Amino acid sequence: MSEAQFPPAHPFDDDKLKEECGVFGVVGVTDAANFVALGLHALQHRGQEAGGIVSYAPDAGFNSARRFGYVRDNFTKQSLMETLPGALSIGHVRYSTAGSKAAAIRDVQPFFGEFSMGGAAIAHNGNITNADALRRELIERGSIFQSSSDSECIIHLMARSLQRNIPSRMEDALRRVEGAFSVVAMTRTKLIGVRDPLGVRPLVLGKIGDGWALSSETCALDIIGAEFVREIEPGEMVVITAEGGVESSHPFRPQPSRFCIFEHVYFSRPDSIIGGRSVYETRRQIGVELAREAPVEADLVCAVPDSGTPAAIGFAHESGIPFGMGIIRNQYMGRTFIEPTEQIRNMGVRLKLNVNRALIRGKRVILVDDSVVRGTTSRKIKEMILDAGAAEVHFRIASPPTAWPCFYGVDTPQREKLLAATMSEDEMCQHLGVDSLKFISLDGLYRAAGEAEGRNAKCPQYCDACFSGEYPVKPADMIEKGFQMKAAE
Amino acid sequence: MSEAQFPPAHPFDDDKLKEECGVFGVVGVTDAANFVALGLHALQHRGQEAGGIVSYAPDAGFNSARRFGYVRDNFTKQSLMETLPGALSIGHVRYSTAGSKAAAIRDVQPFFGEFSMGGAAIAHNGNITNADALRRELIERGSIFQSSSDSECIIHLMARSLQRNIPSRMEDALRRVEGAFSVVAMTRTKLIGVRDPLGVRPLVLGKIGDGWALSSETCALDIIGAEFVREIEPGEMVVITAEGGVESSHPFRPQPSRFCIFEHVYFSRPDSIIGGRSVYETRRQIGVELAREAPVEADLVCAVPDSGTPAAIGFAHESGIPFGMGIIRNQYMGRTFIEPTEQIRNMGVRLKLNVNRALIRGKRVILVDDSVVRGTTSRKIKEMILDAGAAEVHFRIASPPTAWPCFYGVDTPQREKLLAATMSEDEMCQHLGVDSLKFISLDGLYRAAGEAEGRNAKCPQYCDACFSGEYPVKPADMIEKGFQMKAAE
Amino acid sequence: MSEAQFPPAHPFDDDKLKEECGVFGVVGVTDAANFVALGLHALQHRGQEAGGIVSYAPDAGFNSARRFGYVRDNFTKQSLMETLPGALSIGHVRYSTAGSKAAAIRDVQPFFGEFSMGGAAIAHNGNITNADALRRELIERGSIFQSSSDSECIIHLMARSLQRNIPSRMEDALRRVEGAFSVVAMTRTKLIGVRDPLGVRPLVLGKIGDGWALSSETCALDIIGAEFVREIEPGEMVVITAEGGVESSHPFRPQPSRFCIFEHVYFSRPDSIIGGRSVYETRRQIGVELAREAPVEADLVCAVPDSGTPAAIGFAHESGIPFGMGIIRNQYMGRTFIEPTEQIRNMGVRLKLNVNRALIRGKRVILVDDSVVRGTTSRKIKEMILDAGAAEVHFRIASPPTAWPCFYGVDTPQREKLLAATMSEDEMCQHLGVDSLKFISLDGLYRAAGEAEGRNAKCPQYCDACFSGEYPVKPADMIEKGFQMKAAE
Amino acid sequence: MSEAQFPPAHPFDDDKLKEECGVFGVVGVTDAANFVALGLHALQHRGQEAGGIVSYAPDAGFNSARRFGYVRDNFTKQSLMETLPGALSIGHVRYSTAGSKAAAIRDVQPFFGEFSMGGAAIAHNGNITNADALRRELIERGSIFQSSSDSECIIHLMARSLQRNIPSRMEDALRRVEGAFSVVAMTRTKLIGVRDPLGVRPLVLGKIGDGWALSSETCALDIIGAEFVREIEPGEMVVITAEGGVESSHPFRPQPSRFCIFEHVYFSRPDSIIGGRSVYETRRQIGVELAREAPVEADLVCAVPDSGTPAAIGFAHESGIPFGMGIIRNQYMGRTFIEPTEQIRNMGVRLKLNVNRALIRGKRVILVDDSVVRGTTSRKIKEMILDAGAAEVHFRIASPPTAWPCFYGVDTPQREKLLAATMSEDEMCQHLGVDSLKFISLDGLYRAAGEAEGRNAKCPQYCDACFSGEYPVKPADMIEKGFQMKAAE
Repeated sequence: MSEAQFPPAHPFDDDKLKEECGVFGVVGVTDAANFVALGLHALQHRGQEAGGIVSYAPDAGFNSARRFGYVRDNFTKQSLMETLPGALSIGHVRYSTAGSKAAAIRDVQPFFGEFSMGGAAIAHNGNITNADALRRELIERGSIFQSSSDSECIIHLMARSLQRNIPSRMEDALRRVEGAFSVVAMTRTKLIGVRDPLGVRPLVLGKIGDGWALSSETCALDIIGAEFVREIEPGEMVVITAEGGVESSHPFRPQPSRFCIFEHVYFSRPDSIIGGRSVYETRRQIGVELAREAPVEADLVCAVPDSGTPAAIGFAHESGIPFGMGIIRNQYMGRTFIEPTEQIRNMGVRLKLNVNRALIRGKRVILVDDSVVRGTTSRKIKEMILDAGAAEVHFRIASPPTAWPCFYGVDTPQREKLLAATMSEDEMCQHLGVDSLKFISLDGLYRAAGEAEGRNAKCPQYCDACFSGEYPVKPADMIEKGFQMKAAE
Repeated sequence: MSEAQFPPAHPFDDDKLKEECGVFGVVGVTDAANFVALGLHALQHRGQEAGGIVSYAPDAGFNSARRFGYVRDNFTKQSLMETLPGALSIGHVRYSTAGSKAAAIRDVQPFFGEFSMGGAAIAHNGNITNADALRRELIERGSIFQSSSDSECIIHLMARSLQRNIPSRMEDALRRVEGAFSVVAMTRTKLIGVRDPLGVRPLVLGKIGDGWALSSETCALDIIGAEFVREIEPGEMVVITAEGGVESSHPFRPQPSRFCIFEHVYFSRPDSIIGGRSVYETRRQIGVELAREAPVEADLVCAVPDSGTPAAIGFAHESGIPFGMGIIRNQYMGRTFIEPTEQIRNMGVRLKLNVNRALIRGKRVILVDDSVVRGTTSRKIKEMILDAGAAEVHFRIASPPTAWPCFYGVDTPQREKLLAATMSEDEMCQHLGVDSLKFISLDGLYRAAGEAEGRNAKCPQYCDACFSGEYPVKPADMIEKGFQMKAAE
Repeated sequence: MSEAQFPPAHPFDDDKLKEECGVFGVVGVTDAANFVALGLHALQHRGQEAGGIVSYAPDAGFNSARRFGYVRDNFTKQSLMETLPGALSIGHVRYSTAGSKAAAIRDVQPFFGEFSMGGAAIAHNGNITNADALRRELIERGSIFQSSSDSECIIHLMARSLQRNIPSRMEDALRRVEGAFSVVAMTRTKLIGVRDPLGVRPLVLGKIGDGWALSSETCALDIIGAEFVREIEPGEMVVITAEGGVESSHPFRPQPSRFCIFEHVYFSRPDSIIGGRSVYETRRQIGVELAREAPVEADLVCAVPDSGTPAAIGFAHESGIPFGMGIIRNQYMGRTFIEPTEQIRNMGVRLKLNVNRALIRGKRVILVDDSVVRGTTSRKIKEMILDAGAAEVHFRIASPPTAWPCFYGVDTPQREKLLAATMSEDEMCQHLGVDSLKFISLDGLYRAAGEAEGRNAKCPQYCDACFSGEYPVKPADMIEKGFQMKAAE
Repeated sequence: MSEAQFPPAHPFDDDKLKEECGVFGVVGVTDAANFVALGLHALQHRGQEAGGIVSYAPDAGFNSARRFGYVRDNFTKQSLMETLPGALSIGHVRYSTAGSKAAAIRDVQPFFGEFSMGGAAIAHNGNITNADALRRELIERGSIFQSSSDSECIIHLMARSLQRNIPSRMEDALRRVEGAFSVVAMTRTKLIGVRDPLGVRPLVLGKIGDGWALSSETCALDIIGAEFVREIEPGEMVVITAEGGVESSHPFRPQPSRFCIFEHVYFSRPDSIIGGRSVYETRRQIGVELAREAPVEADLVCAVPDSGTPAAIGFAHESGIPFGMGIIRNQYMGRTFIEPTEQIRNMGVRLKLNVNRALIRGKRVILVDDSVVRGTTSRKIKEMILDAGAAEVHFRIASPPTAWPCFYGVDTPQREKLLAATMSEDEMCQHLGVDSLKFISLDGLYRAAGEAEGRNAKCPQYCDACFSGEYPVKPADMIEKGFQMKAAE
């Protein structure tokens, strides 16, 4: 599998937090797998490494296809899609975790298990925080794991459940599991959706013709022309059949929800609706809040494309400083060109971006980016902007300092690699060599996300562990591996 | 070569005029082909179907690699690039013409010829308007053509020239050729650049270390860190060696220049500098002119991404109406998904775009697009916008009505397929079903492009044949095939 | 995976019994996987569909590569072989069973399981006759099967064993298994070999430098320059380490051995030594016995190449009739050419064979073939021979009539498809339209295989179920599916 | 194009003379290209590197496909064959010459030229001995060569001919050409075949239904069920149409024919008929002559498979010593396995052959091979035979010592690499370390080829330059490059 087949998701994807998965499923429509392919295509931003689809038809049984690379490059071939017949289908796109070894196709979901009462397939978005312990226990009892994925625990727990139907086995399994999970699963007749009690990762329900769809985000309902019905609630399980419709239950102990606030900042697509709010509008509003919190005199507001654009538009609008395209993104990104012998400065960045020199020259520029993770890309962009003749460079960041790793389904560097874990805002400003650097405050972010009073420190409305270090679920496996939680205050 | 390997250049590339080529060359740098690969990557928007690179090294001779697909997918492999050694190299990216049969690798440039005094390779951007006649004459005399490309005539004319050196043979050849051409060529020691007397297509000169570069656009100089020196002049020929520098001559009869104005509107990248002007700034200014020429009361200015964005920003700025991202582009475009049995309305468009429903709903929307060609896409976008609940839709087009085909290196539909060839502005408005539709005037476009007095009707400063039907070079082959020119007024 | 990548193993492989597997393993040599690749290449005749290799190195852990197609096309690539480091490695080549659906990579062995005391990989040649029942039982208890292969039962039985080391777990597992098995397995430190109590399938031990090898046949020891030490005995288990050498045990209840006699007739390579006998010599001797049992006046003895050649040589020698190459095999076999519109008679056969017309014309020809399965190919060859002008055609078959399917690791058609299951020798002769047809007798075959007294009817020295219908292990799964065993006499 | 896709033609193909081409064409049959694919498959032994097919249909024009690799791997795909419609088609298989650089697809025939009266395609078997001079002259006049092939001169000479129809242009062209050629060509309506005046390379005519076929060998007529009509005569040109049948002419000055005698020894398939003789029978008779000329006491006659087998059968028959399969060929040859760290002696040979140890042990073995070129393989085989315990090894070679390179379409090493160019028979025997070594005499070879009186020294009946150094056509280009011809006696 050549590297060139994995064009990067984002110009600086090695300096971003990365959502690890998107899930999608439909029931009650002819050739369901074709809908799933479209849905996964719309969720491609949630995972570019690989994708898989499982379908079921009474005369063909369960069929599965898992492939590395983009949905558009694999699940568009007639010859492949014909192997996935039936009116019931689920799919998954994934991003590999940073630390893992070379990806193996056996790590690509959905995972499938044949039980005595029939088969089941599952697709999981999130991360199981006690997976290591569960895995040890299951192996001890004779389960054979086929992947290195934490998600595989769920299907083994189901295989060993004493329940006599698959939804009940899934309840059994998920009650043993800790962490964040939005699961889409299927049996021969049922489409199943579950969200963990905190509702960390998104999952929505749509209606398409006589059938139903489950999706990580509403933008994937749009692509297949499905109507957005509602979000699956935190802790809710829905079991859907074409004939019987949606049966809802709440198998877990209720808890206050803690949806991932970074979905608003960066992970979700701006045209999705989350928690009743437009992601685009939230991001634009972050720009407005930033302009209020950290104003600066300047000539031009630019975005680091594309994720910084809505906040930049909001900043420009609030500040009255004109918005312009100071950085142009190459639409045909690639990151593996062979470096010519004569060194090209910042070649990696140049492959993805170019400065609009004529616009930038002589101007005081406000650059709006969504986040600072390692800071390596921010430095390079600053250099390019200055090389192009900018008079001043002011960074405005649409999220608070990212100081803690996420253990709920997001690929984050180790804590010591996070710039904000070791430096104050001033030190970062100096480190990046910019004229000013300001992050939005946690309260500002909550306000932009619709919480007029800001963050409720006693019982935060969102999971913001990456900013606050307050983890709503104890990361058990990581603590066993030596991770130090923030000292209680 | 599967279809999936050709992701489209632009969300609506089947409803756009398409530049057919980009050319690039360097001399005097180690591993020149690696620089050419980078340059072609930056010019990928000028041709996505295929690319080719030729290099020369004294101990390895001429070597060539021509491939279908993106530069990033082919010319990034160590194993391939190692077959292209040397300090002198040229390359080409191309788009196939609409009417041609299935593309053949033999149509991919650069073309190469071995002459008695050594080999030469050429890469051509533009179109030869008397190629059919030249081809017939050359075949009659015993030349064997290997491709269906008009550009191959040049190398055969060179082969038959009685001149004793290759630059002189190229002069001989290009004097026989009519039409538009920006050529980058190479011998064993020289890098050669030529522009036709009208200078229809762009070509610029850059300096990199001790060496030199020729490129269709300045953005490709930026990617390799080369300094932009100047444009090659219309009718100029430069012969460059690493040691001797740039020798300039003007082998053709001088004429007033007629640069392609559509390069400003759409073909060139916004971060390129053309004719001393920023393409981005011209486009933004088009939006300003549009807002003056065709104002309308509305709540929101949106762009059809990405090419309409600078003009939309300009329109918003001039009109005071807020700019917003009403249409979100899928970053992982694809166009060949299998249509599920239950019809999805406007599926082709949905694969590429989604409406930002929360932003659009209830609003009077101004939609800025760069051009209207067939109009098919405009209709679909209008439908999506209305489905999402917009109150009104007003189209503002950043170019005059495209009523005539281009014969100078751009892929245009036949005249009868051009919406503006058969309908007035009002008819188009009705046909598209929008609340209003306005194109920028030809004078407005010229003003935005820096001609304060607008278009000089007696002697237009640009080639605008696609708008005006006034062809600066008679399209001889097309007339022979029955094309009717506009009656003289 | 295009069909063209699976050139057939034998010119008439759709009309042959097919051995389903070959196994190979080495311990105690640097880069063990390279030796395994060579060994599998020498065993390719035992399975052409797919191959797999697992290796272990202390610093790299277990690594695995499984591929469709020939060993020479996959396991010769530096980039792949570098992923298989270590001094301990096993491998497997396989043929798919006739009835199975499109092959899946997950059915390709070796199979791997991670247990609490470490990982193990197994490669299995043979067939488990109670696999269906075992599978049901294991699923009932929560095992998740990944393949459709009977061999996977072994690794799940091992996973559930209460023994604390892997060789003991393998004993546990194999005691639950019925049928034929020659297994090569590995842990992090040990190479393990086992043969079932009847010793139906072959397995031999070799010495290479300071290390050891296990192989289905001796010809694969030759290719790596290993010395043939001895056969693994029926019912024997060997556990081999680089330091400790070979530890032998006999974990099963002893039984008289029943080696597959068809290994002598067709499966094994003629240059292998089996049971102390040269396969080539046995086959030549079959020809001698045939000439004695079924002489006929003729001008020429020919073989159906290549497997009939040794018997043809023996027949010619014994009868005094000259041996000649009457049928020439195409060395570049293929079976999927597109049939031209004008029908070519016997096109399938012509792709593989051509008659040596000049030699055949006017002659009375004895044609020696190894077996008659469906008889379809025999008919076509007869036609080609007669078309070429032969005066008479006499078939002499180097095995008794194949009247019963094999359930011990050989791909045979259903009983009703076997020509000999429904016709007498005379009827077959008439059906094939030949001048005479004679099979070697069962006693003659045993004599040729070294049993001077012929077959011991009370306690046959070999498994000859395909000829006699006497199955030494009850085919439990098949009986459950309705297979009728021969009535006891 | 990975190496693994080129499995070798013959176990020791790096130590053999290699025929460089096979040609085939049909006219007057529906879907002619499918017949050509079959014919080329039957001629694959004449060239394994690449193949090409051109077809013509009135509504589709000329179409062409050229591919590296085996015919069976390329021209069996429906999708490819559908691009080659029409009732007229020609094809070519080729072997690259030893000295050439990495093969390029542009060197793969048929070559095509568009002339003013229509297109023509040609496929050439042989070698043009004045190609360098012709090429220089053509380039001087403005022809552009696309390949490094000598054969391309023919199409350029045709392009420049003043004749008004293509067959006449071909006559013009071939009269300028020196050397050996059997050409199959096609226009839009005609299939054309030509042999050079000496008739060095073969070409035969066949009848298939209402149509006609031309082929290098009769074995390719057999595969498509065509009837062998006659050989094309030396110096003959046939122009064939579906309606008008075969028109014959003799455009060259008549000369006594000099067919390549090595076609009998090795190049042609044993089931072909050449010059009215069975190739198999000639080879068998060589063995008979060898047994008479060079008898030796021994226990066993073996062939180096597969090409030595007919002569070994003849030797065994004449000498009364039994024939046996002492060397077993691996049917799945490969030559690129990665050598394990611990050296395997003669690994290259082991991948292709294995000694039948049980048969060889203790015996005095006569080994019959077709030729000795470099001698490297002979040494290795001798070592393997002795390692296996043979008592004596006697080589008998079915051709005279190969002491001179061929310049007529055969790939031979430079003269100094030919063992027989520098050593006497005795020295070679010592060099190879065998108990005896004997080559057949030139007269013996001629007798076996049907010349009862042996070779006519004044006017040899065959071309035997590789044995005698007497070149019937002066190798002009090679002499210019410094090749020293044998001094006149």
